[in-house]
Amino acid sequence: MPATRTTPPIAVSLGDPAGIGPEIIAEAWTMISAVRRGGAHLPPFYVAGGAQVLAGAVASRGLNVPLIAISHPQAAAAAFVNGLPVLGALDGAYTPGVPSRGGAALALASLTQAVRAVVAGAASALVTAPIAKARLAEVGFAHPGQTEFVAEACGIAAQDAVMMLAGPHLRSVPLTVHVALAAVPGLITQGLILRRARIIAAALRRDFGIPSPRIAVAALNPHAGEDGRMGQEDAAVIAPAIAALRAEGIDASGPHPADALFTPRARATYDVALCMYHDQALIPIKALDFDEGVNVTLGLPVVRTSPDHGTAFAIAGKKLADPGALCAALRMAGECAARRAAVR
Amino acid sequence: MPATRTTPPIAVSLGDPAGIGPEIIAEAWTMISAVRRGGAHLPPFYVAGGAQVLAGAVASRGLNVPLIAISHPQAAAAAFVNGLPVLGALDGAYTPGVPSRGGAALALASLTQAVRAVVAGAASALVTAPIAKARLAEVGFAHPGQTEFVAEACGIAAQDAVMMLAGPHLRSVPLTVHVALAAVPGLITQGLILRRARIIAAALRRDFGIPSPRIAVAALNPHAGEDGRMGQEDAAVIAPAIAALRAEGIDASGPHPADALFTPRARATYDVALCMYHDQALIPIKALDFDEGVNVTLGLPVVRTSPDHGTAFAIAGKKLADPGALCAALRMAGECAARRAAVR
Repeated sequence: MPATRTTPPIAVSLGDPAGIGPEIIAEAWTMISAVRRGGAHLPPFYVAGGAQVLAGAVASRGLNVPLIAISHPQAAAAAFVNGLPVLGALDGAYTPGVPSRGGAALALASLTQAVRAVVAGAASALVTAPIAKARLAEVGFAHPGQTEFVAEACGIAAQDAVMMLAGPHLRSVPLTVHVALAAVPGLITQGLILRRARIIAAALRRDFGIPSPRIAVAALNPHAGEDGRMGQEDAAVIAPAIAALRAEGIDASGPHPADALFTPRARATYDVALCMYHDQALIPIKALDFDEGVNVTLGLPVVRTSPDHGTAFAIAGKKLADPGALCAALRMAGECAARRAAVR
Repeated sequence: MPATRTTPPIAVSLGDPAGIGPEIIAEAWTMISAVRRGGAHLPPFYVAGGAQVLAGAVASRGLNVPLIAISHPQAAAAAFVNGLPVLGALDGAYTPGVPSRGGAALALASLTQAVRAVVAGAASALVTAPIAKARLAEVGFAHPGQTEFVAEACGIAAQDAVMMLAGPHLRSVPLTVHVALAAVPGLITQGLILRRARIIAAALRRDFGIPSPRIAVAALNPHAGEDGRMGQEDAAVIAPAIAALRAEGIDASGPHPADALFTPRARATYDVALCMYHDQALIPIKALDFDEGVNVTLGLPVVRTSPDHGTAFAIAGKKLADPGALCAALRMAGECAARRAAVR
């Protein structure tokens, strides 16, 4: 596949240096590079800064990962064969488990550098390691999370950057995310469902190679409201939105009673579940795909994924952190980037 | 174990004769009786009426299950070795997939007979096959479901008959059940959590042999409300209820962010998850334990379980219905009954 040889590398942000980000990035290089170096679907990756932090993580985890300083993303591919490429001079101290203002500033600088590279086309995809939002806010980060930051850098409205959780068993999207459960019913509108479902359908086509994505829409109420006996929203709001989607050629179905939507048999009937709220989408994916869950941002002009876990300060530096989700995020970013490159 | 030999049989209600109940009961006899006939933890079972219906199901499924008419539960143990015991003359026609008023009347009569036997102590446990609630209402059934019917027959308030879903990977209890999602936050009170948690703790001790049950209480809001930024209920209502439970010696923990509560690692830390609403409790159990989920009613003076699925009219009589959940319900009923008998 000649297209792949010219695909730019994946840019990986360091995440909070006191979290598990640095060690799982180093570990991922040992796991992925060995089998995938030069592979068709995974471009090489580099880290946006943090050479000293990474060196500390490599040592504490007892790994053999040479760190190779590069001065441009273009240099990543050649370096990746021999070690983990690190771009630029951004750096700080490695103090696992002890978050600090300086660490948060480094995390933000690394994220900023990585986002710039992918927006400029110097990187083919962005994979973000976990940050601590409250810490980042202290050093001037004005966004609710990394997703909104990336969206803004891409000139996309934050509400059109759609979070999808993806694992080996399930893809799911929460329609509403970080709001109180009591606020959820009032936020569910036909307009929101249509807007999100269109973004999902387009992204599954373009980035996941699914020609006609099947979107299973979850009901809000138990038993999908059971003819209005347990809530009106399913019949009054969700069902008409599904009809409108179908009328425009999107293969949407539902509203499906949510408790039965994640059985093995049900999962075989759709490509993605569009859920009404945070826990409805995240409970099944974490129950089924915990160590391999990837957070993919749909609707952006760039490819962006991240592992579906946090900084895990409590286990940082203790050789306990599992790199599985980060490896899955890297693999998925590589696959999505390759599909976009193939179309160009 | 001499106690087991004198344990009365399990009474099984027929369920709607047009549903999958009759065929999975017959199939369960072939699966369970072969390995468990005379076994220590599973008393024999009999069906409350429906000999003709069962004969039809046996024939359509191509089984070899002799039906043995008995006139008293006491006769079940001896008969069970040679065939499926059927108690009494209640009966009707076998018309799989075609529910009728007559079928609903038979389902209700069978349920009534089985409940009477277990309340009288002639049966050691009750296992109910699935009914169609709307159909039963047409023939005078005034309860929301079988659970409330059984509770009333036992002289227990319906709200103190607590539904627990149990499978090989998880036990979970929904605090609120068949209500609109919008109504859930207003229904969650400290009093309700305390009342249910006490029933759960007592039942896991008595019926499941867990001396000090660990109850993980799920949060209502995403991230357990994140210090009130996404809802107040977790801090204001659920946390104080957990503190009160701990003060009275019940090993309750939480409120736990619900999305992380059903990972393999999290599940290893508790015996039962007390969830705030229907889908929060049922999504994970159906995702993880679909074909083996058992519905257990806690808080009753009698043991009652049922398979966690419906009548499935659409596949009745087509050799498709899986008897796994009914077998699991029979096994669990037998184990709970044996524990109660051992204490007596």
